[in-house]
Amino acid sequence: MTKIGIPSLKKFICDVLAQCGVSPADSATTAEVLVTTDAWGVFTHGTKALRRYAQKLRAGGLKAQGRPAIVRESAAWALIDGDASLGMVTGVFAMNCAIAKARTSGIALINVRNSCHFGAAGYYAQLASRVNMIGMAMANDVPSVAAPGSKGPVLGSNPFAFSAPGGSHPPFLLDISTAVVAGGKVKALMAEGRPIPPDWLIDLEGRPTTDGNLYPLQASLSFMAGHKGYGLALMIEVLSGVLSGAAVRDKVGAWTTDVPARVTDHGHTFLVIDPATITGANTFPGGMSSLLDGIKECPTVAGAGALKIPGEMEAARAVQAEAGGIPLPDDVWESLQGAAQDAGVALPE
Amino acid sequence: MTKIGIPSLKKFICDVLAQCGVSPADSATTAEVLVTTDAWGVFTHGTKALRRYAQKLRAGGLKAQGRPAIVRESAAWALIDGDASLGMVTGVFAMNCAIAKARTSGIALINVRNSCHFGAAGYYAQLASRVNMIGMAMANDVPSVAAPGSKGPVLGSNPFAFSAPGGSHPPFLLDISTAVVAGGKVKALMAEGRPIPPDWLIDLEGRPTTDGNLYPLQASLSFMAGHKGYGLALMIEVLSGVLSGAAVRDKVGAWTTDVPARVTDHGHTFLVIDPATITGANTFPGGMSSLLDGIKECPTVAGAGALKIPGEMEAARAVQAEAGGIPLPDDVWESLQGAAQDAGVALPE
Repeated sequence: MTKIGIPSLKKFICDVLAQCGVSPADSATTAEVLVTTDAWGVFTHGTKALRRYAQKLRAGGLKAQGRPAIVRESAAWALIDGDASLGMVTGVFAMNCAIAKARTSGIALINVRNSCHFGAAGYYAQLASRVNMIGMAMANDVPSVAAPGSKGPVLGSNPFAFSAPGGSHPPFLLDISTAVVAGGKVKALMAEGRPIPPDWLIDLEGRPTTDGNLYPLQASLSFMAGHKGYGLALMIEVLSGVLSGAAVRDKVGAWTTDVPARVTDHGHTFLVIDPATITGANTFPGGMSSLLDGIKECPTVAGAGALKIPGEMEAARAVQAEAGGIPLPDDVWESLQGAAQDAGVALPE
Repeated sequence: MTKIGIPSLKKFICDVLAQCGVSPADSATTAEVLVTTDAWGVFTHGTKALRRYAQKLRAGGLKAQGRPAIVRESAAWALIDGDASLGMVTGVFAMNCAIAKARTSGIALINVRNSCHFGAAGYYAQLASRVNMIGMAMANDVPSVAAPGSKGPVLGSNPFAFSAPGGSHPPFLLDISTAVVAGGKVKALMAEGRPIPPDWLIDLEGRPTTDGNLYPLQASLSFMAGHKGYGLALMIEVLSGVLSGAAVRDKVGAWTTDVPARVTDHGHTFLVIDPATITGANTFPGGMSSLLDGIKECPTVAGAGALKIPGEMEAARAVQAEAGGIPLPDDVWESLQGAAQDAGVALPE
């Protein structure tokens, strides 16, 4: 574990991205997304991916000077082409567009094509709850998850995130993979030398396996809750892939394993609702306070403490990280060392 | 098992509802929802509930002459008060409103308060896919599901449904409970004399139990996929309860166990997207055909056949039911016998 202050870590990311030709504004946006994710303790989706993003930027699989742009739009929706720029840049652009439209229309749907891996879906959802709106974010990905009865991967671990302001509580932030776990967690357990649970992986014959080395080429993740997770992943594929006009299923580029020069054409979906428009100002925050108060008062088993609101642990970790730095796990630190070496820039202190 | 033709079953429902003072139009709407659900083979959410709805109509917990109405609206959203009318009547009214708004706005969100149990969420979602749109439906309910670490129920088994036109395939229709199973399935297994799986129920001390007799008063369902299902159920509570201004958590009336005179104040959320508006006509159906073709071509384990698209089995059952009648399970038939007796109307032939 290596503890790094938030400003140092952001500066390092901007240095690496500047070396790849990314503008200061886009670098700052990307640093904000990745470092916030690390500050939440979601290390599988934070700065660990920087090295790979930088490799793709240098090889042209991501366009350093790409500019996401609106292709078609109306008051309550827009279709955006990400121009193969960093997924974080396109994701923030799209979510800001959704928030602006929801302020006038009450609800807004943004579909995105020609993007790449965008990190943690929850980051985008919480951009809405920060401004007292409700946000959702979804993305498709290259298949890595086996459906009930399939021999190999059928769909990506297509993530889903939802956030709503918590009233007198911290924001409610749900960020889940439709796979039984995110693929990064298989690698995280292996990096820690811990065993893979028996219901996580399915080999190419459709049999459960605990051999993490088989993932992702010779084993697939399982879906969460069997056919339910499969159905939710397919919903996300419909919205983020088909409706956005992005690549679908095996046409999506594998951002971690393909040649870095390949453009991935990931699709995303963002949805924002402005409660103040629909319910009138102040009604919704009071309702959220009351709902979450009730959850906190539910009896729990001995030693469990009050029930957690999704996002509560992450918010508490972010407060600690703000004060005392982020405790980066070894695999993240090693990845940052590689990124520093590749770019010829100094590691953060 | 008792096999009943679709027209006979619809007429019976209309007869019972007429005896309760419901108009012919609202009776026909309700019959269409409940019989379609039975035709899909989703017997836990179809005509089995008719007797209870009729009891509530007679006692005033449902208003036979209730009229759902728009409270506030804009181009892309509306807030509807169900006026304590049948959940099926309010659900269809709301979904038709969503479809009309999506046709002009591209997307529409409808929030509903003061409704009741509306049957199968999937019915409403597929009203959109029938007209080449994408639909979602959600509802909250009285708590029956334990969160990870809780001693008792925390949230309802809050259902989520999604449907999209399938292009050259049948519509994609996902209809899931956020509980590990719908509560009706516990009763269905018990009615069939089959054991309850060990991960379905949690007793009031937070321990797993296989005693189905404890449900729902002394045991809770578990969430699907643990904290993920809990988070999704909480999302549905936020959208359908808090945002709609409906009752929330334990304030929702228990439509099966409370005194029939009690109004339940359930909340619903409906969301419709018109792909033709966003992508231009014809792009989306082709994309859906291609996506589902790809799923059907995925290799499967021996004997499994091609992967199922969610909703495919239900659509096949509906075709059989149209031709040869619906094979009603004994518990459904007994409930219909009770409804016939209560109302003094003849059973369907």
